Amino acid sequence: MTHRIAIAPSGFKESLSAARVAEAIAAGVRRVIPDAELDLIPLVDGGEGTAEALALAGGGRLVACTATGPVGDPVSSHFALLGGPGPLTAVVEMAAVAGLALVPPDRRHPGATTTYGVGELIRAALDAGARRVLVGCGDSGTSDGGAGALQALGARLTDRHGRELRPGGGSLHELEHIDPSGLDPRLADADLLVACNPYNVLCGKRGVARVFGPQKGATPAEVELLSAGLERLAAVLTRDLAPAFASSAGAPVDLRTAPGTGASGGLGAGLASVGARLLPRYDVLLDGLDLDARLASADFVITAEGALDHQTVRGKIPAEVARRAQAAGIPVLVLAGTIGPGAQDVRAVGVDAYSAILPAPMTLGEAIGRSSEFLADATERAMRIMALGTRLASVTSGAPVAA
Amino acid sequence: MTHRIAIAPSGFKESLSAARVAEAIAAGVRRVIPDAELDLIPLVDGGEGTAEALALAGGGRLVACTATGPVGDPVSSHFALLGGPGPLTAVVEMAAVAGLALVPPDRRHPGATTTYGVGELIRAALDAGARRVLVGCGDSGTSDGGAGALQALGARLTDRHGRELRPGGGSLHELEHIDPSGLDPRLADADLLVACNPYNVLCGKRGVARVFGPQKGATPAEVELLSAGLERLAAVLTRDLAPAFASSAGAPVDLRTAPGTGASGGLGAGLASVGARLLPRYDVLLDGLDLDARLASADFVITAEGALDHQTVRGKIPAEVARRAQAAGIPVLVLAGTIGPGAQDVRAVGVDAYSAILPAPMTLGEAIGRSSEFLADATERAMRIMALGTRLASVTSGAPVAA
Repeated sequence: MTHRIAIAPSGFKESLSAARVAEAIAAGVRRVIPDAELDLIPLVDGGEGTAEALALAGGGRLVACTATGPVGDPVSSHFALLGGPGPLTAVVEMAAVAGLALVPPDRRHPGATTTYGVGELIRAALDAGARRVLVGCGDSGTSDGGAGALQALGARLTDRHGRELRPGGGSLHELEHIDPSGLDPRLADADLLVACNPYNVLCGKRGVARVFGPQKGATPAEVELLSAGLERLAAVLTRDLAPAFASSAGAPVDLRTAPGTGASGGLGAGLASVGARLLPRYDVLLDGLDLDARLASADFVITAEGALDHQTVRGKIPAEVARRAQAAGIPVLVLAGTIGPGAQDVRAVGVDAYSAILPAPMTLGEAIGRSSEFLADATERAMRIMALGTRLASVTSGAPVAA
Repeated sequence: MTHRIAIAPSGFKESLSAARVAEAIAAGVRRVIPDAELDLIPLVDGGEGTAEALALAGGGRLVACTATGPVGDPVSSHFALLGGPGPLTAVVEMAAVAGLALVPPDRRHPGATTTYGVGELIRAALDAGARRVLVGCGDSGTSDGGAGALQALGARLTDRHGRELRPGGGSLHELEHIDPSGLDPRLADADLLVACNPYNVLCGKRGVARVFGPQKGATPAEVELLSAGLERLAAVLTRDLAPAFASSAGAPVDLRTAPGTGASGGLGAGLASVGARLLPRYDVLLDGLDLDARLASADFVITAEGALDHQTVRGKIPAEVARRAQAAGIPVLVLAGTIGPGAQDVRAVGVDAYSAILPAPMTLGEAIGRSSEFLADATERAMRIMALGTRLASVTSGAPVAA
């Protein structure tokens, strides 16, 4: 009989898009099972590549535009306008205008980076006629709680002397007042959806400054300053801004701790305060893919991620795929560029087995440069090991190897 | 039912003995199949660790002694005296006195290194009462055709002025005459066995200077000088030395091209000229292990090697294990520290599947330092992938994945 295999990977950051990852895995599978029926389902998580992938998948197009980058310089950016019926939908990928990759390594001061460009892209999408704007989070280089985006959308954030705040989360502890009178009036009618990792919250012990600040380059002192600033922002947003949008946003969310408020350095909280809905990212991003049915009709599922570690179960693509496949009783194999501490946690969410792709000691740079080749080769090796297990099952009269 | 798994690996050079490799693999297997019956069969190929492994396996002991190292300085070395019935047998591991690891990186001039210490160890073994001396080859740092060993055993190698040759293969092109009169008389009665890789020959296009000279540090010009010197050595040995030992050695071997003459930089040829028998190494080294029967009684076999590449099929341990397992219809999995070009050739000799062990980009030094941990983890991962194949076989009503 023919094998049906669903290939539903993430992209590999700074290396391969999800579509290229899926193709490399498919090539490796075909070397071992030439007649397999392969269902390629490249997946995005809201971060790098999301706008392009959704435009490709949905018969839409990318719109190029220049906007303010995370360190204040203009950057070449883009948003997507999707095809299909219903209100015109735009996809604004925050990483395309405020992503960590746009912050030069020698300027990684998370207290100074801004989401101003995100607000500009939202306005550009509204200018283009979008009535629905989907904001993808992930891979951000900012920690300003969305303050920059709010400024670009017309809000005035001022200190106790009435002066406009400087860009970046490092100034937020000086925030005294927000004046919403200049906000773009179209926000009141537009449907603003933020695709968030619900594990990310703005404040508290697991708040975004403490969890992600260090990897964006913050020192311990800067982390504390950012934490205090984001607390301050949440309080002022709740007092001065959120009430005006309460009707369009439904039940008011707690800007400090609601799921997704910490998305992309707190952009979730900032946008929620002007009426955006914070939604679990896969509910939004997988809409229309019919993912559950496609996974359920496969004999097994292969997914992949650049790094498999303790973060994976906290909302990364392989964990999401595994949860859904497990619900349908379908086995899951993960291929990973790197296996780090905590990777074994994925077994609890439905991953049966995982494999690393590197064939030999090498630098990260070489690994990234040859990741497509390594991925195809590692897939082939894993398929042959699986085949060995299958052969063993028949040798031992069908008794399965204990898992 | 219980799984019976034979674990028959090589050691990892400069990292783990075969016994430690087998233990790491066993640990990884037990995490997935706790009740598996494991048969640990650490294997040696004649190179580093051979004397110790055979002493351990055969109820023997190591005898420490100081001898001349490959660059002329004395080194702490050893040979083994085996237990068991029959004539007292010694194991002389050439790598323990003339191995590449004993040549400092800044002195890797293969034209100057000598096997003198190998001759000294053979004499020490005879002094200890050995009547049978097994010489293990592999991992050598020399290319002198065994000239140094012959000198240590009492032969005089002279140039056309009657002067003793300087040590090393780089002087062999000056060889004019060999005087056997001073040779240790015990050689005539002792049973000298050389455990060789039969693929290694002394001269010609696949001769040892051309194949291994470069990896021992020879420049192209040095390779040619070595080749010419080894040709000259073969001619003079055949004329001046070999006839005296023809009766004890059985049919005379062609010192230029007979299998094993190129073993350890030509040590095989040098020892053959004084009556040593050159034997395929596994015929000698696996003697007494009952390997074929143990592999045949397993459900599957795991073997391992530091590097899996085009050299593997040319007589390395995983290829030998796979050939024997294949003859019994038993599947074989290989775990490899590094997978290099040509690794896929092992499928033709009976390897069903192989896997690399590294979890992430890193230096060779880090990989070596953590190889035991990585090996156990990679074994666990491979077992889980096999189990996935087994599960799939039952899901798909026993239809095997095409291999």
